[in-house]
Amino acid sequence: MDGAPPPPSPAGLSAYVAVSQLLGLTLLATTGAWLGRYRGGVAWHSPLQFNAHPLCMVLAMVFLQGDALLVYRVFRHEAKRSTKALHALLHGLALVIALVGIIAVFESHRTKGIPDMYSLHSWCGMATFVLYLLQWFLGCGFFLFPSASFSLRGWYKPQHIFFGITLFILSITSCLLGITEMLLFNISDSYSHFVPEGILANTLGVLLVAFGLVVGYVLTREEWKRPPLAEELALSMDFKTLTEGESPDGGSQ
Amino acid sequence: MDGAPPPPSPAGLSAYVAVSQLLGLTLLATTGAWLGRYRGGVAWHSPLQFNAHPLCMVLAMVFLQGDALLVYRVFRHEAKRSTKALHALLHGLALVIALVGIIAVFESHRTKGIPDMYSLHSWCGMATFVLYLLQWFLGCGFFLFPSASFSLRGWYKPQHIFFGITLFILSITSCLLGITEMLLFNISDSYSHFVPEGILANTLGVLLVAFGLVVGYVLTREEWKRPPLAEELALSMDFKTLTEGESPDGGSQ
Repeated sequence: MDGAPPPPSPAGLSAYVAVSQLLGLTLLATTGAWLGRYRGGVAWHSPLQFNAHPLCMVLAMVFLQGDALLVYRVFRHEAKRSTKALHALLHGLALVIALVGIIAVFESHRTKGIPDMYSLHSWCGMATFVLYLLQWFLGCGFFLFPSASFSLRGWYKPQHIFFGITLFILSITSCLLGITEMLLFNISDSYSHFVPEGILANTLGVLLVAFGLVVGYVLTREEWKRPPLAEELALSMDFKTLTEGESPDGGSQ
Repeated sequence: MDGAPPPPSPAGLSAYVAVSQLLGLTLLATTGAWLGRYRGGVAWHSPLQFNAHPLCMVLAMVFLQGDALLVYRVFRHEAKRSTKALHALLHGLALVIALVGIIAVFESHRTKGIPDMYSLHSWCGMATFVLYLLQWFLGCGFFLFPSASFSLRGWYKPQHIFFGITLFILSITSCLLGITEMLLFNISDSYSHFVPEGILANTLGVLLVAFGLVVGYVLTREEWKRPPLAEELALSMDFKTLTEGESPDGGSQ
């Protein structure tokens, strides 16, 4: 870089990112309030072990995953390699925390003698987690420690972006299914009487949808995509010349 | 048109559209099989009135809505005005059938003395329907019987597309929540034993996600977007000249 100040972020982007973070923190607080106030809190070696599941999944598969998707918009003037590393790191952290959440529910089921993997929530949730893990490995292989050719990376990039947003949507959907299951298991007799726990958990569902909506809007708005830095453009032209029409990396992600 | 044969559709598009239609018909058949085999079928003035709800909502808010979104990709060489009219017509038909589905559940609740609008499914579903109705009116107002200026239409078009896809995703999510609710209301004792009804309804959920995935992939693939016809480009240039930089309609939708 030549020391010149980076161009300002597009108008509105910062406001939308700020709203997404406020929504993200609010939905984490709402999850905590639901589990703490109505479900006895969270503890590992106890009958409360199950409650670690919703907490970990909302934190990992919604908040952290959403923030990992936003890094290319937020750190738009940083070197692409650093932004990629942060993107992979946040997704990796989400995977580890989600794994803890999955272990919590399997252990809790075993202790209580409840069968695993019979519900639509478990089918959607497990498929999402496995595909998310696969997407992470593919992303690292293609973009972070690249062994693939430039043309193969160019082909994979739009697939990576499409499936990345899809997995984020599926994660939120799985959370909504989990909320509905948990309410019908625990308060099926009183849910229809608009008890506070039902309203709080429904509100958590609405917050999850709102977070997904704001993150999705930021990601898909054409003029908010990350512009390539000057040196990336120059590098891209060099590679194009060297490899006869192949480009190492598209402009924005 | 000058009578020349239209250019062929992009490779792969027809196959993806065919798969989407196969999935759509399969999910309709699966909904019918679930309601017919395990829930006693569908009838209006009877205790089976409730069952009209899932049937109408899957048909309208998933299959018809999905197909309405696909018309710009499928009828890519037809005049834009005809494609727009078909897009609005399919959405309008979906709205009417969805309204019948909503009346079914409210009447069924009234007959059985069940409260309305307490569950996360009902919150998400009703919000989706109301916003879908609003989006339809806005779409007609901006694009079909336009009274808005060209620059306003240019501003609204990306919002219309973003919220269109969002409402389609929310519709599928609401259906998945409805399936989970219906299973836990009806077979909560046997669901965890992998009974055929549970597996069939879970499979319906997976089919809904698969339909959404294929439709979403077709819609978001850059090279499959509808190219503007030659006469639209010429018209656009004329208007641009006339209105000093304002374009009546973007290239693809």
